[in-house]
Amino acid sequence: MELSQDKIISAHNRIKPYIHRTPVLTSSSLNNMFGAELYFKCENFQKIGAFKIRGALNAALSMSKDLIIKGLATHSSGNHAQAIALSAKLLGTKAYIVMPENSPKVKINAVRGYGAEIFFCDPTLNAREEKMNEVIYRTGATFIHPYNDFRIIFGQATACKELIEETGYLDAVIVPVGGGGLLSGTSLSAKYFGKRTEVYAGEPEGAADAVLSFRSGRIEKASFINTIADGLLTTLGDITLKIIQKNVNDIFLVSDDEIIEALRLVYERLKIVIEPSSAVAFAAFIKNKEIFHGKKVGIILSGGNVDTEKFDFFKSN
Amino acid sequence: MELSQDKIISAHNRIKPYIHRTPVLTSSSLNNMFGAELYFKCENFQKIGAFKIRGALNAALSMSKDLIIKGLATHSSGNHAQAIALSAKLLGTKAYIVMPENSPKVKINAVRGYGAEIFFCDPTLNAREEKMNEVIYRTGATFIHPYNDFRIIFGQATACKELIEETGYLDAVIVPVGGGGLLSGTSLSAKYFGKRTEVYAGEPEGAADAVLSFRSGRIEKASFINTIADGLLTTLGDITLKIIQKNVNDIFLVSDDEIIEALRLVYERLKIVIEPSSAVAFAAFIKNKEIFHGKKVGIILSGGNVDTEKFDFFKSN
Repeated sequence: MELSQDKIISAHNRIKPYIHRTPVLTSSSLNNMFGAELYFKCENFQKIGAFKIRGALNAALSMSKDLIIKGLATHSSGNHAQAIALSAKLLGTKAYIVMPENSPKVKINAVRGYGAEIFFCDPTLNAREEKMNEVIYRTGATFIHPYNDFRIIFGQATACKELIEETGYLDAVIVPVGGGGLLSGTSLSAKYFGKRTEVYAGEPEGAADAVLSFRSGRIEKASFINTIADGLLTTLGDITLKIIQKNVNDIFLVSDDEIIEALRLVYERLKIVIEPSSAVAFAAFIKNKEIFHGKKVGIILSGGNVDTEKFDFFKSN
Repeated sequence: MELSQDKIISAHNRIKPYIHRTPVLTSSSLNNMFGAELYFKCENFQKIGAFKIRGALNAALSMSKDLIIKGLATHSSGNHAQAIALSAKLLGTKAYIVMPENSPKVKINAVRGYGAEIFFCDPTLNAREEKMNEVIYRTGATFIHPYNDFRIIFGQATACKELIEETGYLDAVIVPVGGGGLLSGTSLSAKYFGKRTEVYAGEPEGAADAVLSFRSGRIEKASFINTIADGLLTTLGDITLKIIQKNVNDIFLVSDDEIIEALRLVYERLKIVIEPSSAVAFAAFIKNKEIFHGKKVGIILSGGNVDTEKFDFFKSN
């Protein structure tokens, strides 16, 4: 696949009619606190509450009509499942989603709310893939991978493209990394639409695989998994790794305490609801603030799908 | 005092350089859920995190230079204290704030963060007023009432003015009512800048004084005080009552459960952080949704100053 800015511009034109152009927020108190000019791209306000709709829709809209009619499929318990479900709904076709049977009810209901058909499986990767194959064989639906797919990467790249359109020149942009769809896409947009804009990622210490893969050039596993940032547990794919190795400046690890402190600042100062995974990029900024001193820095807040039961206000009696 | 749209236009011009023009959010899922076209004016994104800065600044900027130099003063444990503190800071003068000694630390710190001098008193109205008189006598500072003051009312009116500028014609606008500064101001803006725009308020059942005063024409007390909406505990003043009686269509009572349900929908669907008092107007809308069916309705979300310790993420260990 030849990479070019046209690929991202086409993706953007394709998905624009269906997505929100999310706002870019600033906070003078945060700027004063950290001695930098911060621009927060708020994908928590995006359709389905996360950037994932960008890639899913771009993939779906790139398919032939014959294939679209047969439906879209994926296995996921997270935002990608909602993204595929809404994409199918928007295109007037079916979505088949394989979810582990222990998925949170709030996520199951969200996927069902978009009219998708859900297939439950045991909570192992093997069981997921077996069930997925069975569903695809039976329905003829097209499997869409959550990140290791160029169409997904070009779709996710549009968030950073919009950010740069809004802010003009940026010294750096920082995003969270899980499977690397957002990070690889962002690195391409920074290259094509920024001017020497550096690209960094934040990764939880309790899911530290991307940083290892970035250094070794092979897909590595995390030595342990234990983090509040539950959207960032996956490893990179071969496609995302290659783009990231070539175009990303560095990946910074952050602890859960650092993630929670960044999350708190976003709730208190920006007054917006984001999920813990979304605070990882800002946490990476805070931990390395000397590097960014006096710089103009974009931070992508990736999503806002939080279980409201986590707030005292809403706890069931 | 002669009321006219010029008073509100002047107030707006006076404070514009210092405040945010806050965004108006919409949600297709909420519109579908309730069969109305909803426009949320997000004063949680305002300076100090609430609309109160509008009135405080308008009052301060209306004072003579000689008076400004001597400082601003008020007694409050809430957003008005922060509003006076920031107004003083912006005008390069001093703020003297009397606060009950049992005020939440987070509020004390916020006021102190703007450089105000704090005087603590016993948590009774008498103690507050005594201490306030003592401070004013000693400093020569000007006392600014949180709501029963035309300059405050014209300032608060600018939120609804901006809302109507953004949305064009509105069938109705709904706000929460405590002392009535926001409600009376909103009713004036609806009259001058809307076209037959109806005005409603939401009030907590556990602080139900405005509804009584609205019906009797006298300032009444609530029969009991017990609500999560801790920003709405005050009674109306004679000035706010008069404007409200003349220009408001109705005041709806809502229970704490209804407030919490409205709050949850705002967190889940709009992905923004608001304080419980801010959800009261939306709760009133939900409870009376038949009245607003098919209508274009503005809802002012008054503020977002929540103690983040209320969220599991941020609880101290």
